[in-house]
Order: sequence, then C-alpha cells, then structure tokens
Amino acid sequence: MKKPTPNKKRRSKKAKRSVKIGTAPGSLIYVGEKKVESVTAQLIKYNTDDFEESKELDIEQPLGELIEDTHVQWINVHGLHDVEFIQKVGTYYDIDKMILEDLLDTTQRPKVEEFPNCLFFTLKSLADVEGTGFEIEQISFILTKHTVISLQEKPADIFESIRERLRNKMGLVRMRTADYLLFLLLDAVIDEYFVLLDNFDAAIEDLQEEVVTSPEDDTLIRTDQLKRSLLMLRKSVNPLKDAVNLLDKGDSQFLSDEYAKFYSDLKDSALEVIDSVEAYRQMIESVENLYMSQLSQKNNDTMKVLTVIATIFIPLTFVAGIYGMNFTYMPELEWKYSYPIFWGIMIVITLIMIRYFRRKNWF
Amino acid sequence: MKKPTPNKKRRSKKAKRSVKIGTAPGSLIYVGEKKVESVTAQLIKYNTDDFEESKELDIEQPLGELIEDTHVQWINVHGLHDVEFIQKVGTYYDIDKMILEDLLDTTQRPKVEEFPNCLFFTLKSLADVEGTGFEIEQISFILTKHTVISLQEKPADIFESIRERLRNKMGLVRMRTADYLLFLLLDAVIDEYFVLLDNFDAAIEDLQEEVVTSPEDDTLIRTDQLKRSLLMLRKSVNPLKDAVNLLDKGDSQFLSDEYAKFYSDLKDSALEVIDSVEAYRQMIESVENLYMSQLSQKNNDTMKVLTVIATIFIPLTFVAGIYGMNFTYMPELEWKYSYPIFWGIMIVITLIMIRYFRRKNWF
Amino acid sequence: MKKPTPNKKRRSKKAKRSVKIGTAPGSLIYVGEKKVESVTAQLIKYNTDDFEESKELDIEQPLGELIEDTHVQWINVHGLHDVEFIQKVGTYYDIDKMILEDLLDTTQRPKVEEFPNCLFFTLKSLADVEGTGFEIEQISFILTKHTVISLQEKPADIFESIRERLRNKMGLVRMRTADYLLFLLLDAVIDEYFVLLDNFDAAIEDLQEEVVTSPEDDTLIRTDQLKRSLLMLRKSVNPLKDAVNLLDKGDSQFLSDEYAKFYSDLKDSALEVIDSVEAYRQMIESVENLYMSQLSQKNNDTMKVLTVIATIFIPLTFVAGIYGMNFTYMPELEWKYSYPIFWGIMIVITLIMIRYFRRKNWF
Amino acid sequence: MKKPTPNKKRRSKKAKRSVKIGTAPGSLIYVGEKKVESVTAQLIKYNTDDFEESKELDIEQPLGELIEDTHVQWINVHGLHDVEFIQKVGTYYDIDKMILEDLLDTTQRPKVEEFPNCLFFTLKSLADVEGTGFEIEQISFILTKHTVISLQEKPADIFESIRERLRNKMGLVRMRTADYLLFLLLDAVIDEYFVLLDNFDAAIEDLQEEVVTSPEDDTLIRTDQLKRSLLMLRKSVNPLKDAVNLLDKGDSQFLSDEYAKFYSDLKDSALEVIDSVEAYRQMIESVENLYMSQLSQKNNDTMKVLTVIATIFIPLTFVAGIYGMNFTYMPELEWKYSYPIFWGIMIVITLIMIRYFRRKNWF
Amino acid sequence: MKKPTPNKKRRSKKAKRSVKIGTAPGSLIYVGEKKVESVTAQLIKYNTDDFEESKELDIEQPLGELIEDTHVQWINVHGLHDVEFIQKVGTYYDIDKMILEDLLDTTQRPKVEEFPNCLFFTLKSLADVEGTGFEIEQISFILTKHTVISLQEKPADIFESIRERLRNKMGLVRMRTADYLLFLLLDAVIDEYFVLLDNFDAAIEDLQEEVVTSPEDDTLIRTDQLKRSLLMLRKSVNPLKDAVNLLDKGDSQFLSDEYAKFYSDLKDSALEVIDSVEAYRQMIESVENLYMSQLSQKNNDTMKVLTVIATIFIPLTFVAGIYGMNFTYMPELEWKYSYPIFWGIMIVITLIMIRYFRRKNWF
Repeated sequence: MKKPTPNKKRRSKKAKRSVKIGTAPGSLIYVGEKKVESVTAQLIKYNTDDFEESKELDIEQPLGELIEDTHVQWINVHGLHDVEFIQKVGTYYDIDKMILEDLLDTTQRPKVEEFPNCLFFTLKSLADVEGTGFEIEQISFILTKHTVISLQEKPADIFESIRERLRNKMGLVRMRTADYLLFLLLDAVIDEYFVLLDNFDAAIEDLQEEVVTSPEDDTLIRTDQLKRSLLMLRKSVNPLKDAVNLLDKGDSQFLSDEYAKFYSDLKDSALEVIDSVEAYRQMIESVENLYMSQLSQKNNDTMKVLTVIATIFIPLTFVAGIYGMNFTYMPELEWKYSYPIFWGIMIVITLIMIRYFRRKNWF
Repeated sequence: MKKPTPNKKRRSKKAKRSVKIGTAPGSLIYVGEKKVESVTAQLIKYNTDDFEESKELDIEQPLGELIEDTHVQWINVHGLHDVEFIQKVGTYYDIDKMILEDLLDTTQRPKVEEFPNCLFFTLKSLADVEGTGFEIEQISFILTKHTVISLQEKPADIFESIRERLRNKMGLVRMRTADYLLFLLLDAVIDEYFVLLDNFDAAIEDLQEEVVTSPEDDTLIRTDQLKRSLLMLRKSVNPLKDAVNLLDKGDSQFLSDEYAKFYSDLKDSALEVIDSVEAYRQMIESVENLYMSQLSQKNNDTMKVLTVIATIFIPLTFVAGIYGMNFTYMPELEWKYSYPIFWGIMIVITLIMIRYFRRKNWF
Repeated sequence: MKKPTPNKKRRSKKAKRSVKIGTAPGSLIYVGEKKVESVTAQLIKYNTDDFEESKELDIEQPLGELIEDTHVQWINVHGLHDVEFIQKVGTYYDIDKMILEDLLDTTQRPKVEEFPNCLFFTLKSLADVEGTGFEIEQISFILTKHTVISLQEKPADIFESIRERLRNKMGLVRMRTADYLLFLLLDAVIDEYFVLLDNFDAAIEDLQEEVVTSPEDDTLIRTDQLKRSLLMLRKSVNPLKDAVNLLDKGDSQFLSDEYAKFYSDLKDSALEVIDSVEAYRQMIESVENLYMSQLSQKNNDTMKVLTVIATIFIPLTFVAGIYGMNFTYMPELEWKYSYPIFWGIMIVITLIMIRYFRRKNWF
Repeated sequence: MKKPTPNKKRRSKKAKRSVKIGTAPGSLIYVGEKKVESVTAQLIKYNTDDFEESKELDIEQPLGELIEDTHVQWINVHGLHDVEFIQKVGTYYDIDKMILEDLLDTTQRPKVEEFPNCLFFTLKSLADVEGTGFEIEQISFILTKHTVISLQEKPADIFESIRERLRNKMGLVRMRTADYLLFLLLDAVIDEYFVLLDNFDAAIEDLQEEVVTSPEDDTLIRTDQLKRSLLMLRKSVNPLKDAVNLLDKGDSQFLSDEYAKFYSDLKDSALEVIDSVEAYRQMIESVENLYMSQLSQKNNDTMKVLTVIATIFIPLTFVAGIYGMNFTYMPELEWKYSYPIFWGIMIVITLIMIRYFRRKNWF
Repeated sequence: MKKPTPNKKRRSKKAKRSVKIGTAPGSLIYVGEKKVESVTAQLIKYNTDDFEESKELDIEQPLGELIEDTHVQWINVHGLHDVEFIQKVGTYYDIDKMILEDLLDTTQRPKVEEFPNCLFFTLKSLADVEGTGFEIEQISFILTKHTVISLQEKPADIFESIRERLRNKMGLVRMRTADYLLFLLLDAVIDEYFVLLDNFDAAIEDLQEEVVTSPEDDTLIRTDQLKRSLLMLRKSVNPLKDAVNLLDKGDSQFLSDEYAKFYSDLKDSALEVIDSVEAYRQMIESVENLYMSQLSQKNNDTMKVLTVIATIFIPLTFVAGIYGMNFTYMPELEWKYSYPIFWGIMIVITLIMIRYFRRKNWF
C-alpha cells in the first residue's frame, strides 16, 4: 500500500494527538495550539442575595477558603497549555486524572461522562471568525455539587452575557443551582453554532447565485473549501448527539429533574444543527454539480461557435482554392460571368449551411 | 479553515435563530418574519348541542369566564410576532415558558412534548404558493383537557373546512373530545403536504420530458432549484416521523385510546410523505444525470459535424493549394486533362471519406 | 423557495391523495382511477365437502342468509370506485370506517392492521403489462373468523388458479381455514412481483448489451425510464417489509400458529423482492455510467480523427500557400527541382507526423 | 410507466422463480437449471470405531434399515431436479413440505429455520470457474438428531476433504456428533468464498494497473462486468449474515453448546466476506472513476495538440494567402526583400506562439 | 457471470485465507507472510517491588517454573509463522485451539472473545512506513488472571515505551494488575493509528493544494492510491468498534471495574479513528471532484483558444483566397485601392470578432 509522502515544510500547526505516543494513559500532556500567553482563572460566586467576582484567581491560594456550600461557584479557566495550572485545579477539586487528560487534549471528541464526584462534559466551540471562516475551540465543563468549572483554550466573550445576567440578577439564574448554570453555558456554546450555520447558509446561497450568473475561475475552489469546512464541522458536531442524548435520559445525579426540559431542549438544538449540516452538505454538492453542468454547457457553446464558423468557411475556402490553381486549361477562368456566378454559389452554400444550423437550434 | 464571506447586501429575510444569542433560555423572543400586521385570536366553543364562535377574542378580558368544562374550546391565534400577546395566553392557561419559547421560534424542529398540564405539538405547514413555490409556516398546538390552542404565523384557510364542519355539525366532531379536534387539525396540516407532493411530482415529470424533448438553457437551473426545495422540504418533514411515532405509542394522558387508530393513520401519512420526498429526490437526480448525458451526446454530435466537414475539406484544400503554387516547372499544370483529373481525384477522396464516416455510423 | 410551475395541460390521470383535502377523516372518498365500469362482487363458499360459487353477488340481498359458520366465505370485490357499494359491504361485516377509507385510497402505503373484529391487509399488485410496462393496482384483504374479503380495482386473473384449486379440491385449501386462504391470496400477489423482476432483469441485461455493442440515441432515455420504474416499484414494495414482518411475529388472533411457517415464507419472499429491486437499481446505475464512459470514449475518438487530419494537413497547406505567393523575387520558384523537392518535404513531414501519432497510440 | 420490452430471443437460462406462479404453496416444483443428468445420493455412516460409505444409495430401499442411532449419518444428494427423488427422501425423514419447496427453489435466499424435528439451512455455494468467472449453486442442509442431509445441484468436490477426513479418522470429526459435521460442511462452503474474494482482489488490482498504464477499449466493459458480478455476489452473501447470526445465538436444540464457538467463528467469516465485498465494490468504483479521469485527461491532451498546431499555422496560412492575391497594385510584391522579410515575420510569430503555449504549460 | 482472469504472474504476496481450504477447523495453519526469520519470545515478570526481564524465552523449558501468582507475567511473541512454537505456548497456557487458529490467521477481523480461562483480543497494528505508506500487522492478546501474552508478526518498537516504564517503575503500571497492562498495550496500538491519520491528513491537504495550484499527470493516480489505502484502513478499523464496544460493557471477568474508565477511553479513541477515516474518505472524493472540474475547466480554456484563433482567421483566409483566384474577369483586381480596402475590411472584421469574444468573456 502506498501513500503520498507529505510535504513536511508547510504543515499547518494543527493539534495532533500523535504527540502523546509513548506516554502513559493519564499523562497530562497538552495537545493543541497555545492560543493565549498565560493561563488565567476567574471565580464567580453567587446565590440569590450575594454576588462576588474575582477578576483573577490566585491559584496558589488555598481554594478551600473561597468555596462555600451556600453559594454556586463558577471557575472559568482561560488557556489550557499550562499543564501545571490545570493539575493544581484538579488537585483542589479532586478531579480524576482521566478528566484532566481529556480536557488537555483539544482533539478529544465531544462527550459526557459521569464520575463519582463530578460530571464531565467536553465539546467544541465554533467561533465565527470574520473573513477567515470559523475556529474550533475545545470547551470542557466539570460540574460538581455546587461548582461549575469551565475550561477554554482562550478568553472568549460567548459567556459574557451570562456573566452580565449574573451580575445584574437578570432572569432566574441567581436563584438556581449549579446545574442550571451549566445548562446556560452549554446553551451559549450551541447557540454559537447557529450563527455559523446562518453564515454557511448565506455563503451557499451566494455561491449558488454566482454559479448561475457569473462563475469565476475560483468559484469551484471556494465551493470545495466550504464543503471541507462542513465536513470538519460535521466531525465536531456529530458526536454531540450521543453526548446530549445521554444527558436527556436524565440518569445523572448531578442534574436535577427540574431542569430536564432544558436539557431536552439542548438535545433538540443539537439535532437541528446536525440536520442542517447534512442538508448544507447536500446543497453544496448540488452547487458543485450545477457548476460542472454549466461548464459542460459552455464547452458545448464554444464548440458550436467553432463548428459553425469552420463548417461554413472551410468548404468556401476550398472552392476559392480551386480557382486559384494555375492549370493552363481551366475553362471557367476565361468565362465572363464566372466571378459573379462564383459569388452566387458561395452565398447559396452559406445560406444552406445557416439554415441547417438554425434547424439544429445552434444559434 | 476558510469560508466565503457572505455577500451581506442581498441577504433574504430568512428567520434566523441566531437572534437569540445571548438571551436567557425561556426568554420569549420571536424568531421569524412578521407575516401579518396584528396578532388576533378567535375562540370557538362547542359541544354536541351548542356552538359559539367569537370572531375576535379580546385577550384583555379574563378567559376564565369564557371557558367551560362542558364544552370543547378551540383558540386559534393568528400571528406570533406579538410576544406580549402570546405571553398573556400563556399566563391564562398556565403554559410552561419552554413551550412559549419554542412556539415563538419559527426555526424550531417539529416535535411533540408532553407536559404535566398539556401536550405540545409543533410542526411545519407547507402551503403551496401559486407560481413562486411553497411557503413554510410554523404551526403549534397546545392540547389541554378541554382546549386546543392552535398558533399560526398568519391566518390561513387550511382549517376553514374544519370550522365549517363544526358550525354545521357535520361528521362526529361535535360529539367528540378536544383530542379528536387536535387530530383533525393535524390531519389538515399533513393533507396539505400531499398537494405539494403532487405538484412536485408534476414538476419533475415536466422537467424530465423537457430534458428529453427540448432542454433549454435554464432547465438545469430549474432542476437544481427543485432539488433544493426538496432538501428544504425534507428538513421540515423528517423530524415529523419521530414526533408522530411518539403519539402512535399512545402513552399520552391527553389522547384517549379511542382515537389511537386515527393517530396511527397520521403516522402512516407522515411516513408516506417522507418516502415520497426521498423518491422524488432520487428522481430529480436521475433527471440531472439525463440532462448531463444529453449534453454530452450533443457535444459529441457537434464534434462530429466539425470533424466530418474538416476532415473532408482540409485535404482537398491542400491539393488545390498545391496547384495554386507558382513554381516555374510544374509539369501537371500544362497537361490538357489535369483539371478534369483533379476533379476526379477530389470526388474519389470525398467518396472514400464519406464511406469511412458511414461505417463509423457518424451520419 | 421556487418550484417550476407544472404544465397543467398534459398531466397524467394519476391517483392523487390531494382530492381528500378538506374532508373529515373516515370520509369515504375514492382516490384513484376508475378502471372498470361497474363494481361487482363474487361469493365463494366452501368447506371440505361443499363448494358454492355465485357469479355475481347481489349486494342488496341480506348477506346474513349467505354466510355460514360451517363454511369459509371468500368475497371478491372488483372495482372500488363505487363508494356506496363498498359502504354496504362494510355495514354487513361491521367493518371500521378507517379500513374502508384506507381501501378506497389507492395511494395508501402497504400495511397490516389488526382490529378487534378483523385483520386488514393492503398492498400493491404489480401486473406486468405487455409492451407498456407494469401497472400498479391496490389490493386489500379483510380477514374475519370465517371470511376473506378481497378488494381489487379491476377483475384480474391472478386469483384464478386459486379459484380453480378450490373448485377441483386440489391441494389442502378446502380442508383449511380462512387464514390459509388469505395466505394463498397474498402469495399469489407476491409471486406476480417475481415475474416483474424477471422482466426487469432481462431488460437491464438487454440495455447493458445494447450499450456495449450498439448504443442508440434513445438508449439512455430508456435506461432512465427503467430506473424511474424501479424507483416507483421500490416505493410500492418497501413498506411491505414492515407489514409482513408484523405478520411473521404471529401476534394476530386471526392467524393460527399452524400456518406461521407460511407467513414466514411470505416474509422471505418480500425480502427477496426488496433485495432484488435494490440490486437492479445499482445495476441500472452501472449501465448509465457505462453509457457515459462509452460516450466519452467516442468523443475522444472523434477528436482524434479531427486532430490527426488537421495536424497533418494544416502545415502542408501552409507550405503550399507560401509557394502560391506572388512575390516578384522568390528564388525557389525558378529552380528546376523545386517541385519534386516540395513533394519530398511534404512526404517527409507527413511520415514524421504519422509516426508521432502512432507512438501516441492514436491509430 | 414504461419498461423496455425484453429481447426474448437471447435470454439466458437463468433460474426463474416465476415458473411457480399459480401453484399451491408447498408444491414441489424445481426452480433452476438441470446441472446433472440423474440425481444420485450417497450415504456415509460413522462413529468413533466404524465407517461405512455407500457409493450410490438406492432410494427405493427402506432407509429405516440403514439408519442407526449409534452412528452419525450423512446423506449427500447430488442434483435437485428430480422432484420425486427429493420427495421420497422427504418422506423417509418426515421433512416438512415447506423445506422441500425451499430446497428445490434455487433462487431461495440463504436462511436458517428451525422445525420441530430438524434444522434447515440453505445457502449459496460460489464455485470459482476457471476463465468464465464464478457459478452460483444452491446448497441446503437438513440436520436431525443423528443425520445431516446435504443437497446440492451437482456433485462438487468441496466436501471431498471432509469425506477424506472421515475415512481416515483424521481430526476429531469421527468422535463428534452430527452438528459438528454440519459445521464442517458449512465451513467448507464459506471457505470457498475466500478463494473467490482473492480472485476478485487480484482482478481489481490488475484492472487498476491496466487503467493507469495501458487502458484498452474494453477495460471499462470488463470493469463493469466485475462490478455486476460483485453485485450478484453481494445479493447471495448478504442474507447469510442474518442466517448465521441466528445460529450464533445458540437457541437451537439441534446444536450443542459445545460447538458454539465454532458457529461464532462461522459468523465472523461470513461478516468478513460481506465487509470485503463492500470494500471491493468501492474499489471498483474507484477504478471506474480513475478510468474516466484518464479519459478526460487524454481528451484534453488531444485537444491541446490540435489547438497548438492550428493556432500556429492558421494565422501563418492567412498571411501566405494575402500575398497569393492577384491585386494589380500590391506594392510589397515588387519589393526586393519582401520574401525574406515574410519569412522573418513568420518565424517571429511562431516563436511568440510557442512561448505563449510554453507558459501555459501545454508542452 | 464473467470475471476477468487475473494476471497470475505479478500477484503480490498478500496473505490469503484461501490456503486453509480443505483443512479441519482448529487446524493450526499460518495464514500470512513470514516477516521475521525465527520466532522468539520474551518474558517480563514484575510486581511492585520486583522486575525480571528474560531477553529470549526458552520455549522448551517448562513455563511452570517461571510463572508465579505474585507477579504479572507478560510474554511477548515475535513472529507467528512457526506453528509449532505457537502450539507449545498454547499447551502451556491451556489455550483453546480456536484462539490459536485465529491468531495464526493474519487476515482475521479484529475481535474480542471471552473464553472460560482467558480473554482473547485480536486487532491490526498499522505501522507508518516512511516513504512507502503503512503496513498492516496482526496483533493478538491473550489475557489470563496474571498473564498477558502478546503475539505479533515481527518485533516492533511500539511496546518499547511500555517496557521502559516497567523497567523504570514509571507511572502506576508496576502497582497494577495484568488487565491494566493489556489496556496499556491496546492503547499503544491505537495511538499508532493517530500517527497514520495525521499523515493522511497532511497527504490530503497536499493533494488538495497540488490540484488547485499545479496538478500533474499522476496527481489523480496518487489520489486514487490514497483512497484505496483509506478503504483498506477502514476495513481494518471498522470491526474494532464492535470489539471495543464489547469491552466497554464491562461484562468480562478478566477486566476489573476499576479500569472501566480506561476501556471507555479506548472506545472513544476507536470511534474517533473511525470518524476520521470516514471524513478523510469524503475529503479525498472532494479532491477527486475538484481535479475533474479543473480538468474540465482547462479543456474549456483550450477550446476557447482554438475557437478564437480559428474563428478570426478562417474567414479572413477565405477572403484572401478569393482574391487569389485566377478568373480573367475580376474587376476588383484592377482597382487602384483594392489592396488598402482589403486591409481595411480585414481589420474591421477582426475588431468585430474580438468585441464579440470580449462580450462573451472569453479573454
């Protein structure tokens, strides 16, 4: 079996799981790009009456002092490449090494897993990046009794509106438990998918119109890029189905039945995203086929122009060639009306040809 | 990953779920187009002996007075964009906020959900619009003990025949409970699908015949549009299967076993719609392939015309060119019978060529 | 979303479910073509010792007198368009309105449903029609304790051999119960499918050979028609799987365990039909691809002929054109051996060209 | 719906189930080709100590005398077309008529069915035929307490090695029960599939190489034939999965748990065959696509040759044509250096053209 | 049915299961290539405190002496072609003949099977081979209470890091039981897949860029080879899903619940491999389509060059041909300004033509 030798020079800096080869399971190794300079954490603590927000959490300080059973704690970690930092968080909360390994691996498939002391959720955030497309980011959540730990590759503002709501006591979130906060966070991540899908929808429609009205040389290449993006998107989104499905069954001890309907809604959203991705994939293939057909059509049109011109003039040129011959004995050459007769014959041939092509609907 | 930057100018006014980004779950935000000026509601109240129809329901008036256990109530809301209006209805009937959120979101997937005090059903109505295709509309139903609330984006006449039957005491509907009314309404929505499918069937048959007899420049573009419509239709219809399936199992406390066979029939209809959509999709692909083949065939025919003409006349023209040369010593030029011999050779070459093409079955 | 406006003039008289729009569920409306002038029924009554056959059953006469528990009754109805007739039969046997509605709808998907007093089975008969293809007909069966009612759109002879066997006491059918008769009837319907499949098999083989040996202009159009027929066939046959599967489970009170193996055999046959349809569909696609490739091949061959001729003669004609110029000072024109040298050069160029094309394997 | 009228003349002698139309279920009719002159049977009787082999079993002689509980009996029937013969065997062993019907029908799908007094297994043997491909043969097995009856369409040597092992007391088979013998026979049949698959593998590799190095006119036709063979093979093999799956569950009273692992192995083999068939099908499609692309590539190359030659010489010929005109007043004609200048211009034009095509990478 | 006769000469030395035809089940026959000269085994014995490593295990020496319940034993066999050697190992450990048969068959599908005294696991190792692609190797594991036996076709270094960890007491492995060692080994095998997938990813990206920027003659052939490799890979990897799934259910008595989460992680990895293979397959098809479209585009461009040149010059040449005729009476020839007028007309025609092609966007 052969395989092209990859051109090593211009490899992209994609996260590669193969860096973990030869390490023990549970080894904490960061698989991914470094998207932010230094890892920071932020602690938000609230209950119905109280709200505290620490801008930067000092990870060296014993967390025990900060955490209270009467409050919901939300620890938001930005940046994953500092393995030591993550390990400390893990130690404070007594988090299984398998979880830490998974959340450090940005190539990890979306999944939900329940552990004796926490619920672990990892999925992809798909941020729409102006001009250059979308960016896949790994987001993980750890839910314990009173705490949600969210871990992102870099600070992003998708949770800003939730923070705002917490600060201003908007909605019911301040009155509710940690699992409701987790739901809000998951919902925010999945809502981002819809922005992306709307952009895909617009891009496909543009491409379709471009193909019909004025296809350009790179139209197909852009269509192909869009299709590959969709395939990447699908790979990120498809496993989500199994994950959210698991939540919807409501077996977890960390999720109260009260919010079951919210998680059911989450599943609906995930299914809609998956449906849409599939529909868009088929639409892109449809655009590609249309492009190919238009190309064939044009090919045929070019051919027709050539054929019409050549078919009319080649025989005429032949006749002109005959009377350009220098045979001594060519009686027609001497005749007085040869030349007008020649023109007459030319015109008749041309008209017959034109009629023939007309009947063939060639122009 | 790259993605074409969408041409922002000429975006269509499609409903976009992304407007909900950053809002709390359960926030009542209308996702969709405003299809009617003002939201109106209508109340129909009936039992075997009695029938009352209020043209326009005053939502400010306490509903309590209007509703009686001895009657079946049908509240028909037209227009969803007035969130306050919907909220009031929700309050009167003690409807869960999640339901209100779903029915205000016209991009919601079809689904059925049972709540402690009601059954919620949302699906798409596909109205056939003369000339311009079909229009997707969100229709939701809330079924409580004695009431059906139907919510549509705009007044439509698909329920008119049911109103007529109620008014005139036709059929058994006046003798039956609210869940039978719901069945009638769902049946009316799904029956509309069949009109649409019949139109698709006709359109595909027309396209197929057009491709075979007289394909035009835009035939393929129209075929492609039809295919995209089918893909949209499929996206609207496919989730229906799961929804109706759930009803068919008959676990709901709001549906009496007596009407189980009706709901089983509904499932059959939904399955037939899905089967047909799939069959039509494959037929359209078949039409596209046929078009491409016809194009290839024509391309080949054009080529043959060019090749036959060029192959016959190019050598002849060469020979004529030879005797048009001005060499001083060209013995043939002086010969008496050169010219007739020249013609003879021309004719022989032409006949040989024609025979060759005949044998190749080129004309 | 757009949709081609169907060309209303030349619509086929296909059965359309949309005629039922706006009618109450359970409304008895015939959906389909009228395939026979008047609806007739025939009663066959038999047990081991006795056999009676009434040519034309008088539907006005009370059926009660005719039916006996000691006999198996088979009522065979030909023609469904007379709703009143069907309604009378329904009343005599106390058949649910839902059944009557389904059997009057010739667009109904194949299905089996058990009712408290009967078992209802509806499927498609696919009669092979000489020259013009196959014809889909709706056949329904109602099985009660001692009676089988079979309802067809028009008289067909597929059951004639069963009647013959009953008359002549062939086989065991006279000794057995009504459910065995139903099995015989279903088996006869499904056996017809195999005739159709054998014809498809032959037609595909013919097309494949035609494509390889002598493709004609309409070969592809005929292939396409065959494919569309297969898609229609699949739509008629696929739901059968679920239906027969249901029977095979043997839960019905109307089917004795004794004949379970027969129904299991029926399921096998149905599965084989479905397998074959799928295999044939793929074979047709294979034929289409082959056709397209042959076309491309020919296109290339045409091109080669043109290229060889043009490439050889265009340069030669150019050289001849040079010595046809009328410049006063062209030394070659005066040379004595110019003309033979010219011919020599021509021949050498031609030979080089031919060798070049030979090496390219062009002829 | 239309369907090509099959060309009746040159139909192949394929087995057609449609010959059974109009016969009663359980009617014993042979569906298939007659592959051997006369039907023969052979009885092998063995236990650990004893081995008897009758070359030709006299079917008229009461079997009762031959069969002993202390031995395992293996009756091997060659040829199925003698319905009477099969019927006699059926009577001696009290075999259900449904079994006899199925084993006489060579179009029967592979299946396993348990009856009160025996286990019935039917599948396809795929013998590799030198030069002309593979041949599908129906093989059925009936397993009772101490007996295996194997029924084939014609004598084949696939069981010869098992007979040899029995004769020479090789392996454990002489010490084991009848169900172990059945396993050996099934294993021998499925092992044959792997020979066939190895041949397919080789054939596909050859085709792939042929397409890349030296595609011939019939390469595609041969590829298509191979694909059709694979589709036929898949149809024969796919149902096997369900059948062997059933055995693997180990519910049968005729199969001892002791050999469960053998039957599990059988299932593995069947699954591997199915996997391979699917992989080969995709590889063949890949070969087809490659062929089409190569063809397109060549088409383009041909085109380029034509375009280069025509584009260079057509303008040159035009210029030569100009100076071949006979206008009385054409000053250039008289100039002394016109002819050399003409040649200079020609060469310059040619060089520019060649550079243009070089830059386009055309040669 | 026909099948190309494989070209016997240049068959590759692929492992062929067909060599087992005619042998008894449980016969120990090596199916595969001989990848190493002589078969060797190595014994590693460890517990928390102790570590022993025998470079070469003497298979003749009674194993009983070496094995202790207080230690975990890992026997690593390199090379499978020495059937006798394998048989001896089998005897010492009382391993079922079915296991030995499966592990000697390098064409065996990946699977897990539990036996009373051991757990058997077989899968494929896919080693990335520099330059020539990947190599499939069969790896089998037998897990008993305190022992893991790993069997490979040839010595490979994928387990070296595990040995290192054992020697140096790194990680927890020395403190854990044999099933944890098995997990480490399986994890090492599956980690190798990710290296391969990263290479595929790189190769596809290179091909995609090559197609867009500078497709070469063999680009498509290399794409096709990559696709075939992926198909082979998929065949090796797909059955893994079922196998690991089985482990994840945790029913085995040989796997302690403590490590369940590790096995769940293994399943995740296997699923990700399968997802990726599918995504890459679709991306390769996308590359192929892009290539074909680029080819069509170029074809059209070539055509346009030819058409533009021919369409401009063929009519001009005709006009020049006319005035090259030798008719005695051609008034224009004598006119004084004929020649300049001729040039003027030529230029006008050319300009009109150029404008026409400009409008058609041809250059």
